[in-house]
Amino acid sequence: MRHLLATRDLSYDNALAILDTAQEMATVSDRSIKKLPTLRGQTVVNLFFEDSTRTRTSFEAAAKRLSADVLNFAVKTSSVSKGESLKDTVQTLEAIGGDAIVMRHWASGAAQQLANFGWSSSAVINAGDGTHEHPTQALLDAFTLRNRLYGTEATGKDLNGLHVVIVGDILHSRVARSNVWLLHTLGAKVSLSGPPTLMPVGVNTWPVDVNYDLDALLAQRVDAVMMLRVQAERMAGAFFPSPAEYTRGWGLTNDRYQTIAGTDTLIMHPGPMNRGLEISAAAADSAQNTALEQVANGVSVRMAVLYLLLAGQLGQ
Amino acid sequence: MRHLLATRDLSYDNALAILDTAQEMATVSDRSIKKLPTLRGQTVVNLFFEDSTRTRTSFEAAAKRLSADVLNFAVKTSSVSKGESLKDTVQTLEAIGGDAIVMRHWASGAAQQLANFGWSSSAVINAGDGTHEHPTQALLDAFTLRNRLYGTEATGKDLNGLHVVIVGDILHSRVARSNVWLLHTLGAKVSLSGPPTLMPVGVNTWPVDVNYDLDALLAQRVDAVMMLRVQAERMAGAFFPSPAEYTRGWGLTNDRYQTIAGTDTLIMHPGPMNRGLEISAAAADSAQNTALEQVANGVSVRMAVLYLLLAGQLGQ
Amino acid sequence: MRHLLATRDLSYDNALAILDTAQEMATVSDRSIKKLPTLRGQTVVNLFFEDSTRTRTSFEAAAKRLSADVLNFAVKTSSVSKGESLKDTVQTLEAIGGDAIVMRHWASGAAQQLANFGWSSSAVINAGDGTHEHPTQALLDAFTLRNRLYGTEATGKDLNGLHVVIVGDILHSRVARSNVWLLHTLGAKVSLSGPPTLMPVGVNTWPVDVNYDLDALLAQRVDAVMMLRVQAERMAGAFFPSPAEYTRGWGLTNDRYQTIAGTDTLIMHPGPMNRGLEISAAAADSAQNTALEQVANGVSVRMAVLYLLLAGQLGQ
Repeated sequence: MRHLLATRDLSYDNALAILDTAQEMATVSDRSIKKLPTLRGQTVVNLFFEDSTRTRTSFEAAAKRLSADVLNFAVKTSSVSKGESLKDTVQTLEAIGGDAIVMRHWASGAAQQLANFGWSSSAVINAGDGTHEHPTQALLDAFTLRNRLYGTEATGKDLNGLHVVIVGDILHSRVARSNVWLLHTLGAKVSLSGPPTLMPVGVNTWPVDVNYDLDALLAQRVDAVMMLRVQAERMAGAFFPSPAEYTRGWGLTNDRYQTIAGTDTLIMHPGPMNRGLEISAAAADSAQNTALEQVANGVSVRMAVLYLLLAGQLGQ
Repeated sequence: MRHLLATRDLSYDNALAILDTAQEMATVSDRSIKKLPTLRGQTVVNLFFEDSTRTRTSFEAAAKRLSADVLNFAVKTSSVSKGESLKDTVQTLEAIGGDAIVMRHWASGAAQQLANFGWSSSAVINAGDGTHEHPTQALLDAFTLRNRLYGTEATGKDLNGLHVVIVGDILHSRVARSNVWLLHTLGAKVSLSGPPTLMPVGVNTWPVDVNYDLDALLAQRVDAVMMLRVQAERMAGAFFPSPAEYTRGWGLTNDRYQTIAGTDTLIMHPGPMNRGLEISAAAADSAQNTALEQVANGVSVRMAVLYLLLAGQLGQ
Repeated sequence: MRHLLATRDLSYDNALAILDTAQEMATVSDRSIKKLPTLRGQTVVNLFFEDSTRTRTSFEAAAKRLSADVLNFAVKTSSVSKGESLKDTVQTLEAIGGDAIVMRHWASGAAQQLANFGWSSSAVINAGDGTHEHPTQALLDAFTLRNRLYGTEATGKDLNGLHVVIVGDILHSRVARSNVWLLHTLGAKVSLSGPPTLMPVGVNTWPVDVNYDLDALLAQRVDAVMMLRVQAERMAGAFFPSPAEYTRGWGLTNDRYQTIAGTDTLIMHPGPMNRGLEISAAAADSAQNTALEQVANGVSVRMAVLYLLLAGQLGQ
């Protein structure tokens, strides 16, 4: 495996190798040793066709902790319209010296395209492509779940038997897709909830249960409820709920939060949170919410991915 | 003291410790040793809610000379309107690994808010908040004054007995406020001059003299005259002078400059200078103008602040 | 020689010193040693008054491979209109600690101005100024030509006897100008081709042949044909050809490419390529096209320029 493009085709062994290496990274980073010489002399390029300061900064921090050099390359629409193709851009960045290319793109499948056509000799890491996948987000979510469950005993363990509920605009969410596949691979049961018009047509072919009634779902045993970020601008028009309807039906309102408060159910969110829309302040600020741990774990997971890909240590 | 939020509550001892450490930084940096290993493995985050390439670059240079890693995080209006609160942003950056957060914000009091509510475990350095404070600017101004007066003998000395005149739009100036408090703490006498409509209402509670007649002030003994940068777009409307009126009354015009040319009076400016508006070309290019020294000293002062805060070496 | 401003006044000896040092850089960089300690503690400032992610990234990669710190300083129009002059900006960046300033500016002659007036104590490297010069682009083109011809035996050799054809909008092209002077200095014969209305008035004083008939030129012995990038927005109005007319007359169309396919004639392009406008996909993807080598060589050439200027190793 030379690239990390999607969790859909990530093997159980490689997923576990990434989580276990991230565990080592997190342990080493725990304040005593903050910088490892591992990737000294290597160059990581952040190639972002879409703005995302959070994801870009997380990869940048991960690369720098491994002593890699980082080049940030933001592509504005105007550059694309200048007629430079994705192929030319990527090959240019490799010629400049990029050993790994972290790519965020607005088009679903952009990262896969690089790999399929063999355009890239660098390691390509998909940092989000359209509504398709965002594999490092799913890996850091799995890492967070595992660590909350097993703590320092987490190494080597998967998520067998867990029940995870993903809530929100599944239709447009690459985070949801990446989590569905990875959670399934790691043995967890996944339920989806959200407005019917925001559930993708092909969801019946995914390894998930769908339940539009979030309250019914939360009445079951749930190990984690992942609240997706709502793009309020999408909650408009005849086919979609208004923001208020969305919150009433699928937000983790204070009332709904009370039904799980104090239990072992984790609340997860990829951030940034829309307090008052998909999550209430009480839920956001509770100890059950892992949002900040997810961010911190994201750096460890991205260190692991960069290291394993550049060292060629992942299997098929 | 874990944060540098304002000079108003900066103690005499801490102010002097920063100036003395900056002196050491400047001495070491003087060409022979350009990079110190002091903050290796630490991460400094530049969190800018307002554009300021000069201030951001100065902090970046300071952090890199101390071997820290730097993450630049610019927040555009759109991100704020996405609903992420200041608290969430800062905690996210800490989770990513920030040890110090250098924050520029359009809202007065934003840095203080972080400290008051205990949202931040990182060292927070206020790099300008609304019209409130910009403490490192005042510290670099004090450093520049002290070095011009005492040269290599500056260590341990304060500004006792000096007379500093600050000229311009005091109402909107965080640079003026930070200088007023720091200069007062260090023993200098401060006079303010500027258009009456640009003098804040509460100025009578500040430890300053106000004199709207700049020529009368310059006829006194003055050790330094600080020209504030004029925001020309504010010099409009019925209550404010036009740019031409401003220059006539409070600019360091060529005529006014001639009354102090060749004396020991220093001319200071935070930059960038509006030649022909608040300062004439002759004054700007004279040897009495310390503008470029201020920029160079800014890096030494910011190195000192980063080092002292991260090493926990400042008293209450 | 303290600055690299233009190839027009670059001596034969200095040009060869840069190419030979770049050769060493390329050899060292060839995967085994990716980072040299040469410029550790030095600061390279990228001062860009015009957007150019490719050129900026190439200089950034070059500086980082030499272990220099890099500060990126982008000047938007608004900053310039704030009234800060070029002189103030450059002196500010030096005061912050810049040892070398890499400047891209929209005004022809901007880099020369810094040198003429003695405003800068740093090494200034012109990274493109208006329609005037872009010297490192010409140096990397010469390096690429030399390497294709002489391989590992290239050191010490010039381009004596070569015939290079430059095709396109010569009028607006700094790349063309820099190449004309450097190729001439290194002993090559240069021919220009392009629409008559896009040929500069003073071209008869340049050491070149002009031939508006590209097909006639390509029928001669040609060692390299350099296709300039077309700014499609300029191909409008009564005096200029339409994009279709441009392609028909001066594009390296598939038909035209077939007349040189399989020969030793190199196809060069500064990138990014407009496939279908100035170059056909077949030509762009052929092994004769050196576009990606040019990008890779750009890093080696810029390493050489930074090193030689900062070490003071170039003659008059």
